[in-house]
Amino acid sequence: MHTKETIILGIDPGTNIFGYGVIRILDKKIELIALGSVDLSKYDNHQLKLKYIFERVRYLVDEYKPDHCAIEAPFFGKNVQSMLKLGRAQGVSMAAVLTRDIPIEEYSPRKVKQAITGNGNSSKEQVAAMLQTICKFKELPKNLDATDGLAVAICHHFQSSGKINTSTKAKDWSAFVKANPNRIKG
Amino acid sequence: MHTKETIILGIDPGTNIFGYGVIRILDKKIELIALGSVDLSKYDNHQLKLKYIFERVRYLVDEYKPDHCAIEAPFFGKNVQSMLKLGRAQGVSMAAVLTRDIPIEEYSPRKVKQAITGNGNSSKEQVAAMLQTICKFKELPKNLDATDGLAVAICHHFQSSGKINTSTKAKDWSAFVKANPNRIKG
Repeated sequence: MHTKETIILGIDPGTNIFGYGVIRILDKKIELIALGSVDLSKYDNHQLKLKYIFERVRYLVDEYKPDHCAIEAPFFGKNVQSMLKLGRAQGVSMAAVLTRDIPIEEYSPRKVKQAITGNGNSSKEQVAAMLQTICKFKELPKNLDATDGLAVAICHHFQSSGKINTSTKAKDWSAFVKANPNRIKG
Repeated sequence: MHTKETIILGIDPGTNIFGYGVIRILDKKIELIALGSVDLSKYDNHQLKLKYIFERVRYLVDEYKPDHCAIEAPFFGKNVQSMLKLGRAQGVSMAAVLTRDIPIEEYSPRKVKQAITGNGNSSKEQVAAMLQTICKFKELPKNLDATDGLAVAICHHFQSSGKINTSTKAKDWSAFVKANPNRIKG
């Protein structure tokens, strides 16, 4: 399926923690290239946070030259003001990617967990343990938020290579047929 | 007060209409430099909209080289999903300004109306008519949304030059004292 190298950048642009992961897919093998998170609460100014997120994403894009970007994007939240702030963090991240003409795919947190562990309600620890197995790294980062960016990158890889149980993503029958031509009996 | 020329870029980054206005302040006189709006509904793709907003704001910044940017930023909305989208539109706009190291000030729609007409509940038509008087332009744009960007630019000018009744913006007594040293009797 993957005859050429594919780089995927996964980002989780929260308003307090910014997490990212970069993977390389070559001959169906997943290789972890970069993994990290930044505690944004050290910036007391909201605009500084946004500027920092933009510059960090732009750096990751220019450094690793991803073919695809995947973003963890919650669709529900506690209140309108926290969603406005989250939208801003997502917006600056997306601007840094879109202006380099790299396609972005969005995944809900539930969808990411589902893709990694098979269960949309699994814990951060369960997701992290599964990522450790998939990417073969020994030590988990101290802050598990770092793994959220990696998780969405892996999720995108599974999604685009058809490794996810597609019956959960097909919204209706025609979409299902289109997504699963081999699963329809003539 | 204004011994040198000051350029202010005002933007109203909605998810359907993007409005902007550019003014020049010289010797306390307000001169209208640019005024426009774009109907974003012609872009059927959300990411294309965001990319477009970023590029338009970046163009305005590079073309007019503003000293300040003012953004109309509602803090309340109907539901969390519309606020997330609005936050994204604001985020990409702010990224285009912040990455050029231009300071941004945010104003609520109510605050903008209050600054222009003296009434936070005034209609779009009332605001537009007042802007016409302030900026001395004869014909109003067909689409009054275009004036929202201009309104927030003028609002910022009034705010920064102390032409707004500051008692409405002071949040507490110490802020009021700081903002109004001449109004405190010793």
